[in-house]
Formats: sequence, C-alpha cells, structure tokens
Amino acid sequence: MKTVILIGANGKMGQAALTGLSKHKVITAGRSGCDYTVDITSVESLRNLFKEVGHFDAVVNTVGVCEYASFTEMTEKQWMTTILSKMMGQINIVRIGQEYIADNGSFTLITGILNIKPIPFAIADATTSGAIDTFVQCVAHEMPRGIRVNSINPTVLEEAWDVYGEMMPGFQPVPGSLVGKAFERSVDGFINGQVLYVDA
Amino acid sequence: MKTVILIGANGKMGQAALTGLSKHKVITAGRSGCDYTVDITSVESLRNLFKEVGHFDAVVNTVGVCEYASFTEMTEKQWMTTILSKMMGQINIVRIGQEYIADNGSFTLITGILNIKPIPFAIADATTSGAIDTFVQCVAHEMPRGIRVNSINPTVLEEAWDVYGEMMPGFQPVPGSLVGKAFERSVDGFINGQVLYVDA
Repeated sequence: MKTVILIGANGKMGQAALTGLSKHKVITAGRSGCDYTVDITSVESLRNLFKEVGHFDAVVNTVGVCEYASFTEMTEKQWMTTILSKMMGQINIVRIGQEYIADNGSFTLITGILNIKPIPFAIADATTSGAIDTFVQCVAHEMPRGIRVNSINPTVLEEAWDVYGEMMPGFQPVPGSLVGKAFERSVDGFINGQVLYVDA
Repeated sequence: MKTVILIGANGKMGQAALTGLSKHKVITAGRSGCDYTVDITSVESLRNLFKEVGHFDAVVNTVGVCEYASFTEMTEKQWMTTILSKMMGQINIVRIGQEYIADNGSFTLITGILNIKPIPFAIADATTSGAIDTFVQCVAHEMPRGIRVNSINPTVLEEAWDVYGEMMPGFQPVPGSLVGKAFERSVDGFINGQVLYVDA
C-alpha cells in the first residue's frame, strides 16, 4: 500500500483517478472540500502541502485551468492563466514535490487528447498538453532517487460528456474507470517518462 | 518575391535562415544591428514592428531565450524566462502578426531537436520546443485568410558546434545551409501546421 496525494480529488478527473487507486491510502487535496487545501499555481501552497503531508509515495494531479477561445480572440491573459496553471503548475508539482517524495516515488500529471486531436477554442489547452507530454518524456531521464514521472492523456470522460460533448463532435467518450486504469498503471507500474493515452 | 521579416537575423540561426531566403526581400529585425529593433517578449515591441514594416508576406523567427540547468536546480525564474521568450514570445509573434500579415502569408517559428533527443540541462528548452511544435500543428487549422504556420526543429548547427558541441555528445551537427532549406520550404511552399525536422 502506497500513500498517494490526489490533487483535484473532487473533480470528474479526480474521481476517475480514484477508481484506479483503491488499493492505496489516498490523501485528497484541492481548492476546497479535501483533506488538504492546495493551489497548484502557488509554489508556496505546493510546498506547504508536501511538508504537511509528510511521507508520501506518489502524487497524482488531475487539475489545470485552461482558458478556451479561438486563437485570434484569445488574450495574453488567457494564455498566461493556462500556462501558469496547467503547465507551470504541473511542472512545479514535480519540481517542488521531488524534494519531499519518498525514494522510488512517482508523479502522474494530466494532459488531454486535444494536442493530438485539435478542436476549435482549445489552442491553449492543446499547447500546454504538448508542453507537459514533452516535459514528462524528457525530465524522466534526470529524476533522482528512482522517482518516476508520467502523464495521462485521456479523451473526454463519459462523466463529463454533458459539459464538453457539444464542443467535441465525433469524439467517443471513455468511462472514468478506464482512465483510472491508466493512473493505476502509472502509480503501480515501473514505467517512466511515458504519455499514457486513453482514447477510443 | 516576398517581403520577409527575419527576426534574429544576426544570430547563427538567423544566418542559416537567410541562406534560404535569397530570392526574397528580407527585412531584418532583432535586439540590435538590424533594420528594426524588436524584443519578442514584448507585445508592444512586436506590434510596433509589424506596424512600422507595413506590408509583409512572411515572418521567420529564429530567436527564443532558453535557460539551461538541471531540472532539480532550475528555478521558477529560469522556467519563466524561457516560457515568456521561446514559447509565449513566439505565440505572440503569430497572435499579433496575424493582424498585420498579408493574405496567404506565413509564419515560421523555431524550436530544436532536444524535445526529441533530450540531454542534461535542457529541460526548459525541450519543454518549450514541445509546446511550440504542438502549437503550430494545432493552430494551423484556425488561421484566417490563408495564413500558414510551421516550425523548424533543427539539430545543432555546424556553425554553433564550438559553443554547444560539448553538451551534445553523439550529436551530428548539420550545415546552416541545410537548415536554410527548411526555412525556404516553409516560406515558399504550401505546407501548413508542420514541424520541419532537420537532423542527421
């Protein structure tokens, strides 16, 4: 049994991840309603989380704010909101977290299929997904103490289809429990530096 | 003959790009010693450049500041310097430039092979290259007025081997004139949303 910090536990992706973590002790973190409160855009908030939890073997992140607009309409501010959360926030989870995580621990980050299957309004989401998928593939080579880093790159969840379905014509949603398997494979396997696509 | 704005014309990559632009009217831009002064990290500076030049058919960018450090040593500030220049700076070249560029114009951005062939100290370079390579592949679908966007992803230049060779063991440098062909193929072809790798 591992101690796993699950960031964004109350969201739909967090609930999907949770289905793959049933054999572990899961500590929930998020903006509210969790064991710990954390804002991934704040280095101080992340550092407090890792310090306060103490011993942990894995961090699973399921959050990252993305702004949606057509490219010609998207503002610098919308770009930076997305970059500071989904991209720099996730890099900081690994950057700060690696100081505190147990030997042979793992980080599992979240991206999304829109960098592979682009759709209107999602350019910032796609670009930062591409950044994080690249990041995990490259940073894995230099993690200390046997620490692993992977990302989960899922298509839309069945559980979120009512929210996103209209902007994703022709996409086949997948059940959260299938995406949970990818989180499980990252946390419980030995794979490192991999992007785990979950698409139908 | 097209009017091409070449950003970073005095650098080694700018000189490589120039070898592929010989049939065009090239307007040089950079931090100093060029026809126009521009700082790609400033939206205002970019807007001034495009306004002042007036008519142009293509923008070729060959600059982007990257900080180099091992991942565990790289600071938030070093990450942000790299993100604001190589990533957001290049996105802004397209974002602002598309308001001014001629119909059927093109943007050619610069990345680099380290997202495909990672090496120590280059995690920020690799991550932002991954972001820009993803960006061009996705944004191409929504550019107005026939405007195209591509990126050139070269390995190290022969002309820069004395600077970078030591940190890139086992890499085969390529001549700038070969990389110039990729810039030419982007500017003079009809390809769009492509990453043009130049590797040996």
